[in-house]
Amino acid sequence: MSTTFHGIIGYTITPFSADGTQLDLAALGRSIDRLIEGGVQAIAPLGSTGEGAYLSDREWDQVAEFSLAHIGGRVPTIVSVSDLTTASAMRRARFAEAHGADAVMVLPAAYWKLSEAEILQHYQSIGDCIGVPIMLYNNPATSGTDLSVELIMRIVRQVENVTMVKESTGDIQRMHKLQQLGEGQVPFYNGCNPLALEAFVAGATGWCTAAANLIPALNQQLYQAVLGNDLEAARALFYRQLPLLEFILKGGLPATVKAGLALTGLEVGEPRRPVFGLDDAGRERLRGLLEQMG
Amino acid sequence: MSTTFHGIIGYTITPFSADGTQLDLAALGRSIDRLIEGGVQAIAPLGSTGEGAYLSDREWDQVAEFSLAHIGGRVPTIVSVSDLTTASAMRRARFAEAHGADAVMVLPAAYWKLSEAEILQHYQSIGDCIGVPIMLYNNPATSGTDLSVELIMRIVRQVENVTMVKESTGDIQRMHKLQQLGEGQVPFYNGCNPLALEAFVAGATGWCTAAANLIPALNQQLYQAVLGNDLEAARALFYRQLPLLEFILKGGLPATVKAGLALTGLEVGEPRRPVFGLDDAGRERLRGLLEQMG
Amino acid sequence: MSTTFHGIIGYTITPFSADGTQLDLAALGRSIDRLIEGGVQAIAPLGSTGEGAYLSDREWDQVAEFSLAHIGGRVPTIVSVSDLTTASAMRRARFAEAHGADAVMVLPAAYWKLSEAEILQHYQSIGDCIGVPIMLYNNPATSGTDLSVELIMRIVRQVENVTMVKESTGDIQRMHKLQQLGEGQVPFYNGCNPLALEAFVAGATGWCTAAANLIPALNQQLYQAVLGNDLEAARALFYRQLPLLEFILKGGLPATVKAGLALTGLEVGEPRRPVFGLDDAGRERLRGLLEQMG
Amino acid sequence: MSTTFHGIIGYTITPFSADGTQLDLAALGRSIDRLIEGGVQAIAPLGSTGEGAYLSDREWDQVAEFSLAHIGGRVPTIVSVSDLTTASAMRRARFAEAHGADAVMVLPAAYWKLSEAEILQHYQSIGDCIGVPIMLYNNPATSGTDLSVELIMRIVRQVENVTMVKESTGDIQRMHKLQQLGEGQVPFYNGCNPLALEAFVAGATGWCTAAANLIPALNQQLYQAVLGNDLEAARALFYRQLPLLEFILKGGLPATVKAGLALTGLEVGEPRRPVFGLDDAGRERLRGLLEQMG
Repeated sequence: MSTTFHGIIGYTITPFSADGTQLDLAALGRSIDRLIEGGVQAIAPLGSTGEGAYLSDREWDQVAEFSLAHIGGRVPTIVSVSDLTTASAMRRARFAEAHGADAVMVLPAAYWKLSEAEILQHYQSIGDCIGVPIMLYNNPATSGTDLSVELIMRIVRQVENVTMVKESTGDIQRMHKLQQLGEGQVPFYNGCNPLALEAFVAGATGWCTAAANLIPALNQQLYQAVLGNDLEAARALFYRQLPLLEFILKGGLPATVKAGLALTGLEVGEPRRPVFGLDDAGRERLRGLLEQMG
Repeated sequence: MSTTFHGIIGYTITPFSADGTQLDLAALGRSIDRLIEGGVQAIAPLGSTGEGAYLSDREWDQVAEFSLAHIGGRVPTIVSVSDLTTASAMRRARFAEAHGADAVMVLPAAYWKLSEAEILQHYQSIGDCIGVPIMLYNNPATSGTDLSVELIMRIVRQVENVTMVKESTGDIQRMHKLQQLGEGQVPFYNGCNPLALEAFVAGATGWCTAAANLIPALNQQLYQAVLGNDLEAARALFYRQLPLLEFILKGGLPATVKAGLALTGLEVGEPRRPVFGLDDAGRERLRGLLEQMG
Repeated sequence: MSTTFHGIIGYTITPFSADGTQLDLAALGRSIDRLIEGGVQAIAPLGSTGEGAYLSDREWDQVAEFSLAHIGGRVPTIVSVSDLTTASAMRRARFAEAHGADAVMVLPAAYWKLSEAEILQHYQSIGDCIGVPIMLYNNPATSGTDLSVELIMRIVRQVENVTMVKESTGDIQRMHKLQQLGEGQVPFYNGCNPLALEAFVAGATGWCTAAANLIPALNQQLYQAVLGNDLEAARALFYRQLPLLEFILKGGLPATVKAGLALTGLEVGEPRRPVFGLDDAGRERLRGLLEQMG
Repeated sequence: MSTTFHGIIGYTITPFSADGTQLDLAALGRSIDRLIEGGVQAIAPLGSTGEGAYLSDREWDQVAEFSLAHIGGRVPTIVSVSDLTTASAMRRARFAEAHGADAVMVLPAAYWKLSEAEILQHYQSIGDCIGVPIMLYNNPATSGTDLSVELIMRIVRQVENVTMVKESTGDIQRMHKLQQLGEGQVPFYNGCNPLALEAFVAGATGWCTAAANLIPALNQQLYQAVLGNDLEAARALFYRQLPLLEFILKGGLPATVKAGLALTGLEVGEPRRPVFGLDDAGRERLRGLLEQMG
């Protein structure tokens, strides 16, 4: 399993009509094709970048089904199925598996802070209801819950199909600990863009990134430089793309990536309110960054 | 407006069937009657304690409609209408107003961190679509977004029907600043149970609390001692109830309040998964606390 | 012991010559007289406000000896004897006792973070070498070490002459816990100026404050209103002085209090570099605040 | 200048007699010889590891003078001259320069929080009084003051002889920003042991470490692997020494490094109280780690 997902794992955005009320699946299809043409090793629909949290259940199902059909096995696909209740996350996980997902990603989204026992049971319940692997995803900035590496390892050991870990705290020491406690047997993935270089250096198997919508070649070259054991090239490639990585993180992934796609000819609408689209100054800055990287 | 809501504002829980799948509206009705018999000055359905975030849209509507009908104007009612998208929060706000809510409460729930402009527009959009007042609610622990007092004041000044502020950070300096910047004209409410005494002392108009489901007399006596300018009595009453206030905060309001209602003869089910009900040790501790307060 | 120190405990500043190199003991004497004329219940030399950390050992001894002699038993005196090494803090504690201090105050100043065992031994060593009581002082903002209430209670129980606790985190819940765990038998004092009202309400025995150099009457009236069980008066008095309390906290106590003394006719020099004196804009703002309070 | 200091910069400890009261300069000499024999590119006396903050002025002078004389130019030497007052730090800087230091290191130690203007003036005053370069040192965990990269760059541009930056927050993004804002012209050094690999990868010129007292060969091999552009070797070498790096950080550098030297035959006493020496369990764990690395 651990080798199915590696390298650049590209997030999809979810295109909307101009007024934000309707899905634009045609545009979604084109954005998926772009990711694949850009060389990503895998695709992750309905993540944070995909505004999964802002969709109705019906919309979520449509996006999941369409994405899996459109990718059609060209690259492995991991669908984010997180939701606030265990029951809803389980339903989504089964739906994703039924429509061909190679794996699902689960963030322990929380309104009320969850105890370790509650988090463990959440993963157990989801794991028990599907046959495909689960990538556990830790991102306290969006989920409100921070999973210690010790807890992550307990879940990995206890829930059979939790086989991968995605870490987005941005703290490189977490990756050292994942490497140490996992004894190199639990593949971990980086979800913090400005940590791309150091995460690979620390041993991350892949980089889950929305940047692949905009600068797939640079993302890929960084990965290849690491695989090729060329530290100097990796450093140079990292610093070259870092301004864009910082910009999309700071500006919010849905707003900046959607604006970037529009700048390169693919209209995908704006994020859903209350999240704003990128303003004019941001768009100009982004245009400059993309030209500079090009 | 500022005097409609004051004193003890009791949160409702949302009762479920034993398996967690169905609403138990009959039990909800009885819990509402208990709050009113306990002397609360107002009721707040569908807040954090009411697991509003864990309900489907259809369930949310049922609970809102039932609660408003059952209260029937016996006390003023403020319905929490928060949701992740502005469109959904607007829909809920209109629904609550149409069914008789005296006011609505809005927490800027967030997956992606919101900018100040986004938060302001969120309140503006909701304010524009209803005629009843809005209580702005700041609680970064559950919403992921911390509103500075300066931003709160900008919203109060700009959005006509945002007329009340509920503060749940637990930082008493925020209340000082609300008092100073609001020049005593913007009523503020405390949502942090262990701050009950100091918030009233700092000038809070009311205390929004789930504790009124369990110890309404003590809550009310504290409020009356403050109104009666009796600091010594207020201090004694506060320290008497503090162990319970700390217990329900630490144990999670839905779990502890539901367990407490069951201990006093009203079966209301458990919280929705992934949140657990109170375990046996917690139940024993709670029984002891309730007896000690009784 | 617990009643010797109560009410308003005024900090002294340490006056320097204009170039910062020499102590100005004559000015120190006048500032002490002002505190006593202002009605403080006790005086605390060489605290944070007194720039104790910025003095040479010789200067420290001079200030301690002079202060104790000049106060001459008119009010109880508690001398801050904190230093980075246990040996130096012990030496200062013995010196203070030998020159008449009624008690000493000890902050566990740290360069390297201290373990609980190290902190406990630090207090034990100091306690063992003197006969007067110790006020344990917790202020992580200046010491770099935060003592939990549980640890504080362990120290109080283990070291016989640690009989008082001063809390300056500004977190009112710490005072609740001191009250609860100390079962009302361990007097605690507030060192966070903007928490003055709530700390007294929560049961603090005294307020250690540099504000008594500038607005002793308002400080005293607040204390008397609390003693008189008049919550409304206490609230009004607190909000009246709060702008000054916030100003001196934000601007740094040595800089603002020294500027305030100069504005009222007592020249005491500036803080030692790298700390700056108050700039012109600050001085104007302070003048306005003092006139407004006057 | 920027190339004088690079690679492994070893901290010295400060040996004491068994009762902690006397310096043991003979042992200091032997520990310096060990560092040099271990291949360090430079030596840094009187840093955090050297307990500079716990020495009297007279002791500080003795250690500085002895260290510089004993090193005798065999490797470049950078002396930490930090102190709480600007005047004392200036005196130490001049003393170090007069006795042959190639550079001095300055941490903006603070009791009262310092403003940016105060920090800038502190560096300016020290810079103006010496002719050798200054390494600015940021370590909020010990100094209480966190310097933003923007402020660091202002100081580097304004104070002529501040030419190097040591960063110990452990946040790799600070190093990215140093690289970006410094445009590759301002050499930066890593002071956080568990960040050793990533800091070099991000472009750090050197690694200031007390670990060189215990595992100089592994430290040096890591540096050489980075210089040799061999990422895989660097990663393997890093993970091999990481358990020790974590152990000495967590256990406190003076306590663990002194214990480690004793375990390898060089008795250097314990840290000064209140800091404890390593306990028996820690000593056993350290012995195991050293054998494992050997």
